[in-house]
Amino acid sequence: MSEDIKKVSMAVVKRLPKYHQCLGQLLKDNVDRISSQELSQLLGFTASQIRQDLNNFGEFGQQGYGYNVESLYNEIAKILGLNTLHKMIIVGAGNLGQALANYEDFETHGFKILALFDVNPKLIGLKIRNIPIRDVDELDFFINENDVDIAVIAVPSDRAHEVAEILSKTCVRGIWNFSMAKLRTGKNIIVENVHLIDSLFTLSYRMNEEKLEERILKQKMKKVLNR
Amino acid sequence: MSEDIKKVSMAVVKRLPKYHQCLGQLLKDNVDRISSQELSQLLGFTASQIRQDLNNFGEFGQQGYGYNVESLYNEIAKILGLNTLHKMIIVGAGNLGQALANYEDFETHGFKILALFDVNPKLIGLKIRNIPIRDVDELDFFINENDVDIAVIAVPSDRAHEVAEILSKTCVRGIWNFSMAKLRTGKNIIVENVHLIDSLFTLSYRMNEEKLEERILKQKMKKVLNR
Repeated sequence: MSEDIKKVSMAVVKRLPKYHQCLGQLLKDNVDRISSQELSQLLGFTASQIRQDLNNFGEFGQQGYGYNVESLYNEIAKILGLNTLHKMIIVGAGNLGQALANYEDFETHGFKILALFDVNPKLIGLKIRNIPIRDVDELDFFINENDVDIAVIAVPSDRAHEVAEILSKTCVRGIWNFSMAKLRTGKNIIVENVHLIDSLFTLSYRMNEEKLEERILKQKMKKVLNR
Repeated sequence: MSEDIKKVSMAVVKRLPKYHQCLGQLLKDNVDRISSQELSQLLGFTASQIRQDLNNFGEFGQQGYGYNVESLYNEIAKILGLNTLHKMIIVGAGNLGQALANYEDFETHGFKILALFDVNPKLIGLKIRNIPIRDVDELDFFINENDVDIAVIAVPSDRAHEVAEILSKTCVRGIWNFSMAKLRTGKNIIVENVHLIDSLFTLSYRMNEEKLEERILKQKMKKVLNR
């Protein structure tokens, strides 16, 4: 990595899919161009935040004109690496693995699921949406043979480490980890962990927010009264 | 909501589960107290970010002493609303609903799944980890009878709206939405959407990051050369 380039913060990265989705919707609605102010209203980030975020990646948009929706959509897709086909496999064909295989949305965005893998002989040979469930013994061979670049881990947490170990010796460059295990892999593999419970905690926080605000206000008032 | 209190930004809220998890691990490891510097190393946020985040909710920690791990853990749990039992049901007992019902981790944190609901007569009456699958016709009655506060939507996107409509007329206060539908609900219900694809996009971005940096650098050099 060049030292001339500041690493883009994860907070910015996490907002990119929102831009991508919003611009995709605008394209569908035949909107040609949009200002950062208008984008701000749709996305709920400030206009200056949006300009800052996009400045990380180059110069898009023009003063007084705004952004060309189609070109910005395409640029963000490129930044997200969506302009190339990703070949994906899912390890674990239980409920979670099957549920993931059923998401047609992944394919729409260029993530093609080639196969699922499992140890259960009752599952091996079956198909989910025409995607075959294979024997996990074939995992490394299949990955290298088919240039798979992303592996999804949908096995129980206590099996995740051995799967990661096998994957480390293949050409896989990214692991999408649904298990709770903290995986150790070689430096060449990027691991993205899905912690569903974080999202449940966020819901719980938001349900609790009003009560929380009352509590904080009471504390503040108490402090003022005690002065 | 009182005007005296600034609404805490979602970026801060999204970091709270990370604090909670990290402090929980420290507690298990019998760590009594910790400085914001040490927390910073474990979490990957700056120490000043951590102090700022926590300042939103009151005064924790003491100059020169740091934070008491147990009390900070408990405070964050309270902020996240984890100090009360949440009663939860899952609508949709397909692969996704069953996978979610199998996550024992939710229960550990006070989210108790009382039942799943489905339209499929072959599923109704079965149990997942002792949690019964019920007829969706009983949904509103069951929710009100059992004071359910969170409903998980794990039905196909084209059925999600009708489910949300039923839920709107119950005592449910939070919806955890796994469908792609943008739900319209009454103001009293908080909707938290799970967009799995955002996390896949983040993985794809990170896999693409080095190439991206080269591209940006080239653009910058080109501009300098053209001056």
